[in-house]
Amino acid sequence: MEDFKVPAEEIDYRIKKIQELLLKKGIDGLFIVQRVDLFYFTGTAQNGVLYIPSEGEPLLSIIKYIPRALKESPVKNIVEIKSIREIQGLIRDLYGKIPHILGLEFDVMPVKDFNYYKTLLPAKEFVDGSPLIHQTRMIKSEWEIEQMQRTAGLSRKTFEYMRSAIHPGLSEMEFAGMFETFARKQGHGALLRVRNYQTEGYPWHILSGKSGGMVGLLDAPTSGAGTSAAFPCGGGSKLLSTDEPIMIDFGTVLNGYHMDETRMFAIDSMPDKALRASRAAIEIHDELLEKTKPGMTVSELFQISLSRAKKMGYEDSFLGPRGYKVTFVGHGIGLELVEHPIVAKGRDNRLEPGMTFSLEPKMVFENEFAAGIESVFLVTEIGCRLISKVPVEIFIC
Amino acid sequence: MEDFKVPAEEIDYRIKKIQELLLKKGIDGLFIVQRVDLFYFTGTAQNGVLYIPSEGEPLLSIIKYIPRALKESPVKNIVEIKSIREIQGLIRDLYGKIPHILGLEFDVMPVKDFNYYKTLLPAKEFVDGSPLIHQTRMIKSEWEIEQMQRTAGLSRKTFEYMRSAIHPGLSEMEFAGMFETFARKQGHGALLRVRNYQTEGYPWHILSGKSGGMVGLLDAPTSGAGTSAAFPCGGGSKLLSTDEPIMIDFGTVLNGYHMDETRMFAIDSMPDKALRASRAAIEIHDELLEKTKPGMTVSELFQISLSRAKKMGYEDSFLGPRGYKVTFVGHGIGLELVEHPIVAKGRDNRLEPGMTFSLEPKMVFENEFAAGIESVFLVTEIGCRLISKVPVEIFIC
Repeated sequence: MEDFKVPAEEIDYRIKKIQELLLKKGIDGLFIVQRVDLFYFTGTAQNGVLYIPSEGEPLLSIIKYIPRALKESPVKNIVEIKSIREIQGLIRDLYGKIPHILGLEFDVMPVKDFNYYKTLLPAKEFVDGSPLIHQTRMIKSEWEIEQMQRTAGLSRKTFEYMRSAIHPGLSEMEFAGMFETFARKQGHGALLRVRNYQTEGYPWHILSGKSGGMVGLLDAPTSGAGTSAAFPCGGGSKLLSTDEPIMIDFGTVLNGYHMDETRMFAIDSMPDKALRASRAAIEIHDELLEKTKPGMTVSELFQISLSRAKKMGYEDSFLGPRGYKVTFVGHGIGLELVEHPIVAKGRDNRLEPGMTFSLEPKMVFENEFAAGIESVFLVTEIGCRLISKVPVEIFIC
Repeated sequence: MEDFKVPAEEIDYRIKKIQELLLKKGIDGLFIVQRVDLFYFTGTAQNGVLYIPSEGEPLLSIIKYIPRALKESPVKNIVEIKSIREIQGLIRDLYGKIPHILGLEFDVMPVKDFNYYKTLLPAKEFVDGSPLIHQTRMIKSEWEIEQMQRTAGLSRKTFEYMRSAIHPGLSEMEFAGMFETFARKQGHGALLRVRNYQTEGYPWHILSGKSGGMVGLLDAPTSGAGTSAAFPCGGGSKLLSTDEPIMIDFGTVLNGYHMDETRMFAIDSMPDKALRASRAAIEIHDELLEKTKPGMTVSELFQISLSRAKKMGYEDSFLGPRGYKVTFVGHGIGLELVEHPIVAKGRDNRLEPGMTFSLEPKMVFENEFAAGIESVFLVTEIGCRLISKVPVEIFIC
């Protein structure tokens, strides 16, 4: 086991931040059930629910397993419950009343659960608390950035392993299994967390040759072949060959914090067209690294990438083939693989220091191949820097 | 790529079955968005939405990627849409009206999405369609059972691989990476699908020695150490040793169909107490195999397992230690790892031919170890049989 614990100051700070937002919005309290949000605000991911009043101490009620929750979480009020039905009484006892306006995680809570919680917590009004949660989680603390840097170190080692272990004849899924096993030996948590119930996170997005040119279901430039019609994305049974472009998009997670990085690989060589596109993607990547600054909007970032792609003649393939392009070039990242902000066309979120997001300029040549790169960026006081530690290069092995 | 396609007769049959239920319940139509349900009723998992009227042909609207959807799905009405906002017009054009009473997947659809669909599909009333979906999916066809048997074959090979590859000094997570890689070479889809947004499916539930005795967040007898407080279940960094009980609970998926099986392993030997408990779990398993028959309730099955455990002196450890026991001994399985029926105390679902579920009698000795077994059962016309092909034994390696 890792010697890992979320510090008390970190939890205090997060609770204060969201309480400020609750007060500002006139919401009396927030009722948190989703595992990642619970972990973010308490330091434990045990089975339980968290009530955060707009003022005062939060209450963490644990169904299972309280000894571990007590060890992991610095939250002061932690109680054991046998059933979620005890919640109403506990809140009433501790705070003297049930909140009038209560925030819930409407972006993840199913309708069926909501109907149940409505009977359990008879507030006057239920509102969507998830935007406040995203706003709080979007800006990372120094401590969180340190965690992501640790994940970045693990990821760099894994990409170096890929360089040494790749060889022709391995299937995409087999090679993914090999590098994931390497990463797991060093703490990789293996399961990538994605908030949206329709998006399935997985670390085997390895697309060799024609697999990269397969358009598919994903809201991403590339989808890949996948393992069957039931799971038609990511790696498949295609064998890796020499002289083809191989895109490896690897999501890593250590102590809950994700990295998401893509590099182009080739065994021996790759065709000129793919090599040029791979280099063009690096040029866009480097221009983004130079120009990303606090105060810009995410839409401006998107436009910079698009303009550069056009200038280099990649308008048709950039972010997907015509008719199937995505309108974002990156996404926030942290305790979930996809967080705010989404670096998308037309969105006006302004960059702030402490934001972390992946930027992934990618070109897709339908039925041919994909080429691109992806790194995780941190917005600083004066500009930005890479959290990613994987060399910014094409891995010819 | 696997040569795999869901046959047209299969899709026709499924649509007819749910239409019967819709008519019976007076629901005018079902609007399906969740990926697994969509795959079940259409044969494709591309990005789209499915409308099933209570009578007549369904309409599959695909956002991305229509060439693949057309190839995979035998559904007759398949159209491409650019935006989900086109749905209302399409339904009106094809069926002449918007349904009065519309079923949605309330068990998975977040409140936020529901609020959006309500404006998009102005039906008079929205009801929970998910119970009808579960009822339909709960009974497997011959074709589906064949698919599960194929998964069972892959799983058997993987357990044989475990037997040959296990050795002291591997960490739980590393060994899991190894056997998952072996399985992926033969088609294992690697991502286990779980419907409940709070349950994270993963195939590395390997718990060696004391890891098996760690109670944790899972609604299961065992939780394990996990990789950190952020993901505190499943395998961790503990190294496998000789002479300890090692529980491997492996979920396999092939062409979308899951298996879920547990066997006890030991390198050289395991202590007598663990060996006796492992044998007792097999006795319960075999009694369940003998007694499971159509017409029984799931609650009776649960009671059979509990009585046998008590009789053998395992009341305190069966299905978890005192204070943390679960009240189910198994769960349905198919396109999702956890389906209906749940084989639980107090539930009155009656067993029917075509039901498939795992049964997992397990004993947990807190802070010591876990012992148990899990196989997938099929209810037949006269009794039941195993779909699982892994030898029913303790793997001393």
